[in-house]
Amino acid sequence: MLFSGGLDSSTVLAVARSWGFDPIALIYHYGQRHSVEVETAARAAAVLGVEHRIQEIPLRSIGGSALTSDAIDVPQDRTQEEIEAPAIPPTYVPARNTIFLSFALAWAEVLKANDIFIGVNALDYSGYPDCRPAYIEAFERLARLATRAGVEGGKVMRVHAPLLLKTKAEIVRWGVELGVDYSNTWSCYAPVRGSGGALLACGRCDSCQLRRKGFAEAGILDPTAYA
Amino acid sequence: MLFSGGLDSSTVLAVARSWGFDPIALIYHYGQRHSVEVETAARAAAVLGVEHRIQEIPLRSIGGSALTSDAIDVPQDRTQEEIEAPAIPPTYVPARNTIFLSFALAWAEVLKANDIFIGVNALDYSGYPDCRPAYIEAFERLARLATRAGVEGGKVMRVHAPLLLKTKAEIVRWGVELGVDYSNTWSCYAPVRGSGGALLACGRCDSCQLRRKGFAEAGILDPTAYA
Repeated sequence: MLFSGGLDSSTVLAVARSWGFDPIALIYHYGQRHSVEVETAARAAAVLGVEHRIQEIPLRSIGGSALTSDAIDVPQDRTQEEIEAPAIPPTYVPARNTIFLSFALAWAEVLKANDIFIGVNALDYSGYPDCRPAYIEAFERLARLATRAGVEGGKVMRVHAPLLLKTKAEIVRWGVELGVDYSNTWSCYAPVRGSGGALLACGRCDSCQLRRKGFAEAGILDPTAYA
Repeated sequence: MLFSGGLDSSTVLAVARSWGFDPIALIYHYGQRHSVEVETAARAAAVLGVEHRIQEIPLRSIGGSALTSDAIDVPQDRTQEEIEAPAIPPTYVPARNTIFLSFALAWAEVLKANDIFIGVNALDYSGYPDCRPAYIEAFERLARLATRAGVEGGKVMRVHAPLLLKTKAEIVRWGVELGVDYSNTWSCYAPVRGSGGALLACGRCDSCQLRRKGFAEAGILDPTAYA
């Protein structure tokens, strides 16, 4: 499973386990500005007793996103209306989920796994093209053709996106039911250093705002330390 | 365009130019055993006056292939029958073309290109699942959903595989017609050091054998220096 240690993928991890899977967490170090998520994710996986792999994916050479280029700023304090507008924000990383799922497909084939889990969500999200149901279906179709099993037969590859059609509030409630400790999850794109030296979530990027809204709507206390 | 500097992609480069495209060569350093192809490809692109980018794609961490793991040998001296058998050989790299095309998709989006060229071939090939027509179609379908244009509209992404249904002999003849200098191309998976210190193609791996067969059937002299 793709695991960033964020709210969504931490919930998916709990969902996969509740369905009887024994997931391996793939943590991607792709040159993201908020590379703190790599350490957070590895620590969270260890705490949960889940095997993990850290995979380098050099996307800074390509750039084209606020997350992988220092030349583009992460937008902050956008209104709900702006976040929900159909325009794709500068935090969109070109072809990111296609690259991420491709690496997961390679890992799955080598590990002899037939199930890939991804925490994409097409309701309370930033309008990224590669988070939509039709996209996930198209990747699953591709995955079935792309690998040994597509020629030699055997179990077909499945791509599970259990959060696809859930609101952020529903995701938070589902996670709390499954015992997810959201204080061990990281969502912020633009972390800031607090006076004590600790990293704090900015509370102002789209990712923080979607997270806050999710907790608020679910009526659950958000345990995040915001700046 | 995906460019390894091999027989196929060097031909595709000439084809794309003959069709009026101004290609950018994406050269992937993916931990391949025959990493000589990275330098060969970069040099060939420079000679041809084609812009190129070298992209790191760390696949050694995943392994699972004779090309990306030292624990698996490259088969040599396989018979034509063995090469043409439906079994997938150990040189198959799990999900390689999916990863390669994903990076090309990211580059295309950042470079504002709408056309991706790839030199896959489903006739004289090694039976890799991700070289078949249905696979290429599925990737093109995915590409159209995966990127900004899939949401915002605009030019759709196209994946061109002009060699898909050609024999190796047809590819060689086409390339010669277009002026490809095949002495500047590299195909071998298992290069050996010659007595003078120069790298020579082994002549015995599947890739060398398919290349030799192509030249022989085309009735054209193979300019390769074999060990």
